[in-house]
This record gives sequence, C-alpha cells and structure tokens, in this order.
Amino acid sequence: MKILFYYRDKDPAPWLMALQAEFPDAHIRVWTAGDNDPADYALVWGPPLAMLQHRSALKAVFNMGAGVDAILQFGDELPQGVPIVRLDDAGMGVQMAEYVTHAVLRYFRRLDEYESQARSGQWQPLIPHERKDFSVGILGLGVLGSQVALALARHDFPLYGWSRTLKDLPGVHCYAGQDSLDEFLRNTRVLVCLLPLTADTINVLNRDMLEKLPPSAYLINIARGAHLVDEDLVSLIQNGHIAGATLDVFRQEPLAPTHPFWQEPRITITPHISAATERAKSVRQIAEKIRRLERGELIAGLVDRTVGY
Amino acid sequence: MKILFYYRDKDPAPWLMALQAEFPDAHIRVWTAGDNDPADYALVWGPPLAMLQHRSALKAVFNMGAGVDAILQFGDELPQGVPIVRLDDAGMGVQMAEYVTHAVLRYFRRLDEYESQARSGQWQPLIPHERKDFSVGILGLGVLGSQVALALARHDFPLYGWSRTLKDLPGVHCYAGQDSLDEFLRNTRVLVCLLPLTADTINVLNRDMLEKLPPSAYLINIARGAHLVDEDLVSLIQNGHIAGATLDVFRQEPLAPTHPFWQEPRITITPHISAATERAKSVRQIAEKIRRLERGELIAGLVDRTVGY
Repeated sequence: MKILFYYRDKDPAPWLMALQAEFPDAHIRVWTAGDNDPADYALVWGPPLAMLQHRSALKAVFNMGAGVDAILQFGDELPQGVPIVRLDDAGMGVQMAEYVTHAVLRYFRRLDEYESQARSGQWQPLIPHERKDFSVGILGLGVLGSQVALALARHDFPLYGWSRTLKDLPGVHCYAGQDSLDEFLRNTRVLVCLLPLTADTINVLNRDMLEKLPPSAYLINIARGAHLVDEDLVSLIQNGHIAGATLDVFRQEPLAPTHPFWQEPRITITPHISAATERAKSVRQIAEKIRRLERGELIAGLVDRTVGY
Repeated sequence: MKILFYYRDKDPAPWLMALQAEFPDAHIRVWTAGDNDPADYALVWGPPLAMLQHRSALKAVFNMGAGVDAILQFGDELPQGVPIVRLDDAGMGVQMAEYVTHAVLRYFRRLDEYESQARSGQWQPLIPHERKDFSVGILGLGVLGSQVALALARHDFPLYGWSRTLKDLPGVHCYAGQDSLDEFLRNTRVLVCLLPLTADTINVLNRDMLEKLPPSAYLINIARGAHLVDEDLVSLIQNGHIAGATLDVFRQEPLAPTHPFWQEPRITITPHISAATERAKSVRQIAEKIRRLERGELIAGLVDRTVGY
C-alpha cells in the first residue's frame, strides 16, 4: 500500500511514525512538488492543488481535520469519484465543548467585566444575568456542534440549534432550513458558529444576520474566519448591539497586526486553538477507515461535494 | 409567630415581603440596636452580637448563607441550646460549580495566557496542557464541594477530594483527616478551597501547605479570605511555585486599594460573587424548615458548634 502525506506548516515526522506503526508494510511518503508517482491513499491538511489534481487512482483522500473547505475550494479540479473523508471528532469535540463552555460561563457570570474592573483596581459586584435570558444558539449541529450542545445542556442554559437538515438533540430546541433562521436568531443571546465553510455559509455572520440577535448578544466563532464579515462585527460591537465576541478563527491567520480586532477590548482573540487535531486519535481513526475500505466496507465521514461538507 | 431579621449591608424589604408571603400571620421585623423584645426565630447574615446575645428563647437562628463563621465567632456569648441552621445550597452550589469550572477550564486551556498575549497583539499558539497533569483537588466536600466536584467530573478532570470525615463521591478519589492531607496535596494541580472557616481551618492555605502542591500549581479560593495567608501566596506566585490564583474572598472586603493582590497579574480577583444567596430559594428553604420545626420534625443543616460548621 502506498500512502501520500501532506500537512501544511507541521513537522510530518511523528505522523509518519504513527502511520507506519499502523501499517508496517506500507510505503509512506511526504508529497513534494513534482511527485506524480502512484499512491493508494492521501492524508492531507491544507494541500496544494497540484498534490491532488489528476490523482483519480486514489482510493480516498483523508482530511486531517473536520473542515474540508481547504480541499473543496479546488472544486472541479479535484479528481471526480475519489472519496474525500473528513475527521470525525477525534478528540476535537471535547476541546470545542471546553472552549465554548468557558466562553459562555465567562459572559454569563460577567467574569470578563470583573477582570477588566480588577485591572483598574475596582471592587464592584454587578447585577447577575439571569439564566433564562442567556440562551445559547448553535449554528451547525454536526458531530462537533452536538458535543458542544451537550456540554452546555449540563450547565442548564436554554439551548437552540440550527442546521441545514433537522436534528434531534435532547435538551436542544432544533430548527432547520433557511425559513426558520430568523426565529432561531431572535431566540439566541449567545450565537456559537460551528458551521462548515461552504458557498452557502461564507459571510453568513454579517450585519443583516447579527442584527436579528437580541440586543447585547454575544458571538463565539470557532468554525472558519470566512464565516464572519469582520467590519460588520466591529460596527455592531461599537454600537452596542453585540456585547462581546470570542473568535478563534480569522480570514487571515495569523491575524494581521494592524487588524482592528486587536484594538477592541470586547473581542477576545485566540490563535486558532479551540481544538487541535490529536495525532494519536486521528491516525487511529484514519487507519481504521483504510482497513474498512480495503475490506470493501462502508465508512463514516464521507464528504458530500454537492453540499460542501 | 415572631421573626427577627437582620441582613448586613442589604436592603431587607424584598426579603421581608417574601417571608411574609410564606407566613402571612407572622410578625416579622428588622432587628435594630436595643430591640430585646421576644422572638421565635431569627434570620441573619453578619449579625452583631447584641442581636443574638441573651436570646435563649429563640427556637432557631437561620443563617442566610452556607458559612456560619460570622455567627460562631461569638463563641460562648451565643445563647447555648439554640439551634443554628445554615443554608443548604439554595442555588449556591450551581453558581460555585460554574465559577470553578470556568477557572479550571481557563487554566487548563491556557486562556488566561492567550488573553494576556492578545492584549499585546501577540498571536502565539501554546503547547496544550495534558488532562492527566491537570488534577483538581477539592478541600471540603460538603453540599457545595460535592456539586463542584460533580461539575468537574463531567469535564473528565482527574479529581481528588479532602474532608474531615471520609466522603464517597463517584469519580472523586477521596481522602479524609490530617494524616492524608500531604498525599492529597501532592496529587493536586489545581487546589479549590471550599472549607468552612473554623479554628482548625483559619490560615490553612499557608506557605507550608501550598509548597506541598506540585510546581506550577493553581489555587482557587471561594470559601473565606481568612483561609489564606496573603503574603505566602504572593511570595509563592513570585517564585513561580504557584502559576496562578483565582480569589473571590478576602480577609477584608472590599479588598483594600493598596493590597498587593491588585498588582499581581497572575491573581484573578472577583468581588465575592462566586455564589450569591438566592432570595427566593433561600426564603423557601428556611420557611420549610420553620414549618418542620413547628411540627416537631427534624431539619437538615444544623450547625455543630464543636466542629464549627
């Protein structure tokens, strides 16, 4: 078996070792420009088009993350008929649930305001928010969104969810489809974006949409930077409609030093760390899927190119 | 029925209304200096000694909080034989669980460091902590400590607990008694203090004890300021043994503007807000206990003056 590997900006060595341990007899190589030699499988993160173009002999392309937008951006240039497979959770759900739980508790208990008070030496108890006014709405209820919802349900927040197709999650009032989006937004105080990035969802967090949230709403984006129209957020924070935002993803990463987000104290910036790909779990999951494919069995996580995830 | 009421620094009006709604026929009055008229029950928070001294005819004193140190400080001056009753949870457990969950997730996911980086415009992913290295040890496993433990168990942190008498909590490795304290501390990366303040626990968070925590430990104190020796914490933070502390309670509240805690960025200060007494739940709980006492039944939350809580 021949495996091609490409992980943008990361040392491939520990991945190759882990993969080789799963498949001692496989020939595993890092793709470099000009490599057109045959391969059975490709494992990729942020690959150049040249790696995948014309490779219609691949049995599958495995994405080493949940979001496949960096592959699907190549559209029809990708070999047709080759299955693209996303990572299913592989440890990311727990991390995202932690990240969102922290951010929601922080806003609910006004701990961001207390920290800013403390920095100026101020001792001032604030009127607590009421839980019934602190509904959380999750945009995108896939494997990761569902885990985030579950974690928040344990903290008893009123929960709403929206997805393209209707989901059924205990403790979550679920909406589906474009027609119900406005009602979902009206009910949501804290909006959590966990959508896949597709032609339908790019720029979805824009002024028109964010204005439908109730006043003093909050935004948490842990999906992709291109979901958000940056200047719309800044202006809605400045006019007070949005009380705070926690952003882990940005249109350009690292976020440019001159970007206005850095100057806005009500925007919390983290450097794309809400969920790291966990090597051991990811390699184990991909190896298991390769074994199933080799036995002619079905696998989970197949990307539907027509919907974009 | 005659009820005496005293709530230091708080408007008594909404409390009196809520109490009157529970006992429409009762005579309820706010205690003021010189009032020695008869009463059946007293509801107090931070009462002066003069209110309780010589009142051996009371059927019970209800404390409108969990910690009764502000009453028991009067020792033998209090009327012997009058039951003192603490609040059982009454909404405080959930709030403390939220507060501690937020602080532990913040340290575990290094979000305090990310915020400090962001304030200086730095984009720098950090090496994640490993969960197995992030054990949480809870000092004090009463009604509130148990709820905090349960919330942390849901986030899969390794959990240790210590109390005077041995408790049995699912998912928590429980220790009891002085002899096991050192082993508890050695196993604890994040120490959460939820002890009652008694003659045995005053100054318990001192250099000698905190030095037994592993290096780069964290402290969360939501019990009483007098548990902590302030200068010991400052010096252990300065020498790096303690990586961070989140403090909600202080020896003197409000914390004096000149107190060194304000100057230390690794100390997070909140103004005693980790758990507010919830009026509706508290009045309902106390009213139910009064009814039980009137019927000659047993009640929970009786304070044992010999142990101090």
